[in-house]
Amino acid sequence: MAGVRGYFHPKTATGGSSLIPSPPWHYSGDLVTVEYRTDPARVAELLPEPLALADEDPGAVALIWADWQSCGSSKEELLDPVRAQYKEAFAVVRCSYRGKTYSRCVYIWVDKDFAIARGFHQGYPKKLGSIHMTRPHPYGPAPRIEAGASFGATLAAADRRLAEAVITLREPAETNGFVNGHPMAHHRWLPSIEKGKRLALDELIETGSASFEAGQPWSADAELALFEAPTEELARLEVHELIGAYYRQVGVSWDGGTLLETGTSGAE
Amino acid sequence: MAGVRGYFHPKTATGGSSLIPSPPWHYSGDLVTVEYRTDPARVAELLPEPLALADEDPGAVALIWADWQSCGSSKEELLDPVRAQYKEAFAVVRCSYRGKTYSRCVYIWVDKDFAIARGFHQGYPKKLGSIHMTRPHPYGPAPRIEAGASFGATLAAADRRLAEAVITLREPAETNGFVNGHPMAHHRWLPSIEKGKRLALDELIETGSASFEAGQPWSADAELALFEAPTEELARLEVHELIGAYYRQVGVSWDGGTLLETGTSGAE
Amino acid sequence: MAGVRGYFHPKTATGGSSLIPSPPWHYSGDLVTVEYRTDPARVAELLPEPLALADEDPGAVALIWADWQSCGSSKEELLDPVRAQYKEAFAVVRCSYRGKTYSRCVYIWVDKDFAIARGFHQGYPKKLGSIHMTRPHPYGPAPRIEAGASFGATLAAADRRLAEAVITLREPAETNGFVNGHPMAHHRWLPSIEKGKRLALDELIETGSASFEAGQPWSADAELALFEAPTEELARLEVHELIGAYYRQVGVSWDGGTLLETGTSGAE
Amino acid sequence: MAGVRGYFHPKTATGGSSLIPSPPWHYSGDLVTVEYRTDPARVAELLPEPLALADEDPGAVALIWADWQSCGSSKEELLDPVRAQYKEAFAVVRCSYRGKTYSRCVYIWVDKDFAIARGFHQGYPKKLGSIHMTRPHPYGPAPRIEAGASFGATLAAADRRLAEAVITLREPAETNGFVNGHPMAHHRWLPSIEKGKRLALDELIETGSASFEAGQPWSADAELALFEAPTEELARLEVHELIGAYYRQVGVSWDGGTLLETGTSGAE
Repeated sequence: MAGVRGYFHPKTATGGSSLIPSPPWHYSGDLVTVEYRTDPARVAELLPEPLALADEDPGAVALIWADWQSCGSSKEELLDPVRAQYKEAFAVVRCSYRGKTYSRCVYIWVDKDFAIARGFHQGYPKKLGSIHMTRPHPYGPAPRIEAGASFGATLAAADRRLAEAVITLREPAETNGFVNGHPMAHHRWLPSIEKGKRLALDELIETGSASFEAGQPWSADAELALFEAPTEELARLEVHELIGAYYRQVGVSWDGGTLLETGTSGAE
Repeated sequence: MAGVRGYFHPKTATGGSSLIPSPPWHYSGDLVTVEYRTDPARVAELLPEPLALADEDPGAVALIWADWQSCGSSKEELLDPVRAQYKEAFAVVRCSYRGKTYSRCVYIWVDKDFAIARGFHQGYPKKLGSIHMTRPHPYGPAPRIEAGASFGATLAAADRRLAEAVITLREPAETNGFVNGHPMAHHRWLPSIEKGKRLALDELIETGSASFEAGQPWSADAELALFEAPTEELARLEVHELIGAYYRQVGVSWDGGTLLETGTSGAE
Repeated sequence: MAGVRGYFHPKTATGGSSLIPSPPWHYSGDLVTVEYRTDPARVAELLPEPLALADEDPGAVALIWADWQSCGSSKEELLDPVRAQYKEAFAVVRCSYRGKTYSRCVYIWVDKDFAIARGFHQGYPKKLGSIHMTRPHPYGPAPRIEAGASFGATLAAADRRLAEAVITLREPAETNGFVNGHPMAHHRWLPSIEKGKRLALDELIETGSASFEAGQPWSADAELALFEAPTEELARLEVHELIGAYYRQVGVSWDGGTLLETGTSGAE
Repeated sequence: MAGVRGYFHPKTATGGSSLIPSPPWHYSGDLVTVEYRTDPARVAELLPEPLALADEDPGAVALIWADWQSCGSSKEELLDPVRAQYKEAFAVVRCSYRGKTYSRCVYIWVDKDFAIARGFHQGYPKKLGSIHMTRPHPYGPAPRIEAGASFGATLAAADRRLAEAVITLREPAETNGFVNGHPMAHHRWLPSIEKGKRLALDELIETGSASFEAGQPWSADAELALFEAPTEELARLEVHELIGAYYRQVGVSWDGGTLLETGTSGAE
């Protein structure tokens, strides 16, 4: 008996229906990053056991927009681009675990189902959203990647705008920011199917890129606004002070992570 | 220390960002059901250990379209209907487990993220799709629920049409079909975050309605067509013989299920 | 030579590509109506020559949500419902023309292209939007059409929420409101393709239903909020005083209108 | 009395609600072009009086995908990119008018309302569609613009795929094809609001770019497939022989056109 196959559901005899192929997954994309400081208590309240606030600059937040093309190892999705292209916006904070600093995505919105599925696997707490980013272009009115060029980035979900930013490039920079620069410490959680029981899945994992290439990062000036919505708490990460903003084009591969511990988050 | 809260991700201090509230979940909706026979081998290949083909009519399939409004116990989603309304189309087969007959959803497409999240929890292998159903209406050209009335139902995903049906109501019926009439035997699967390791989650669960009310079911004549697509295998469940078709309006509540066994599916 | 055919573009040898069929067009739908008073000057500024403010209650506005299924005389769209179903939200005021009171739609958002095309023809100034309305249902948590039942209605465009209402049914009513109860006085405008020339099309037309059937209207209490957006002016029609709210199910046919005059609007 | 303002509807006191600003309009974008020969009779049947088949290669068709960012003279849309970005796919043929060769768009699908409105103005017979194109990128798995790089392009409307192409770049080319290289001869048509009357608008116009800059065109090998759909006739332009394929990045401005004649198309 062959059994059902497929990296993800739906599992079938061939595996050909799986919403996502098995890793490695490859990505080409552009990133708009805006880093700012919020009240560290607002970061701390998003960190379950055994995570703690980062030692330095614990209130730092990165709000990142990304415009991706992604694929599995066959790369076939790239030629049927409805299956490759997606955009996302996500908020990253840092935390401390066993004396080491990690990044952690606390909110994220994407616009395709395969991206949601990868998020379940990687511990990104994904919802659907409507994400837009100005794209650089060598001709016409769209911006080049050069000093003075401005890029807009917006996020909406459930028909409400949640965030918008405009960044204006200043000069080549040494980094693309520091908040999203560590390995990610994420939880993978799923409730028990039985009422009142403990979580069926409660894993703390570490994950990060398997390979990375990138163009010159640019530093930028930024305007950022966050908006309230009845089912969102992004705006609780209030903007107290802008740290910096960045634009960068990257190529990334992802190929699995590491299980750190299980059953310890104390999450409901 | 309060810890993070929320039935689903993202978990926060308040729990207010959770993509879905804790059960019970309540649904109002209309169902178009088309039942047909396919090659039982095509059903068998979708049943992992320890499930087996149903004893009677093992090649029976129900393809069901549903137009839902759903909510948690606060019912607040109903008044912000972008958060309550969704449509879905799904294929159900039957199977046998420990001498008992179960229904099992083998493919399903929905059009909202909260429905995808509920699917992860309930073991429905959900993807995003574009689903449309004719709605009954008491005035104008749309059909009433009465003999001779026709309803169309269509499904597309990734910009390709996958299925379409037209049903024409014949007469009041005793049932809404038999394929989706049993408790559901579903798997909840998630790969390990570590490459080459066994599944992190491999649960066989039983789930079904906590309460159910419904109007008069109607039997119907049907035309049904399934279409090929590069990432879908619905059309492998070829239509060999139509069994029947049905229209029914229902109200349903869901409030959890039962864990049957773990680690036994042998799924990759 | 046969020439190209089709009621609308694209015109072809067969006419089969036309975005809309020739009238009559038939509609089944539900209407949520909220009527309120704004500053009459805000209404007057939307009325071009030769229209003037209505004599009575000139600041009255109706904001209406509609959930439609529509079709041409073949009714084939109803069985491929992606081509039949659409939702809209629109603001209606009244005006006076040659001593007679007309209704006039000043803003409208729809969610399908065939509805946009019909709007060009009928003088409705349509944009795309995301429109949602609670639907009545006989089972489960969704409301019945009965006293105490609440319905939500929301409008967004370009990822921003523009309006939201909740109405709670009070009792059967004699009417469905008065603002949208007159023939429509609409303009059909199109700029010249040549810069600096006068409008290529500047028609004042009268249009209305060719036939109408409807269920019992219900009066309702309402909450209504309008929101600012950079490319929208709906919120300039500020809510000074709520007049009333209504729910009604209707069946409507449209079959052409009357040209009142041309070239007189003075519009840029 | 100030009168209502705005280049397009809805016209208001400020003009700020207009679905499109007044020209000039500026565009940055990438073009995938596939040129092929069909039966010239299938082209001729799409050409109303007084247009005739082009003298040379009259069965030539260009199917073009474009991924645009566009704006008016303020360029503000670029920083709120949900208002600037859109994609389109369109079929172009050539025709002869008064001894001169013109290009003519016979079918076109776009994914934003402002693009539909510009189409009404410019005589492009636009419908809504879902359009996707692989985008070049300097890092990761997405293609660079270089020999051997492959780009996919797909079109769907009303939940059905209508066309898909894959092109593989061969070498730098002298042109981006010849079918879409002439001024456009388009009709602007609108039915009378009164049944049985002649068209209210029946204009033959000439339009083209006011300015144009572009990168190196690349020639490409191509695969192209067209699919049937109940309301579309693109597939009637059957692919008899591929001519060539091209990739090019362009910057374009549009600033009005010329009225050639009125009332002569003989269109229904």
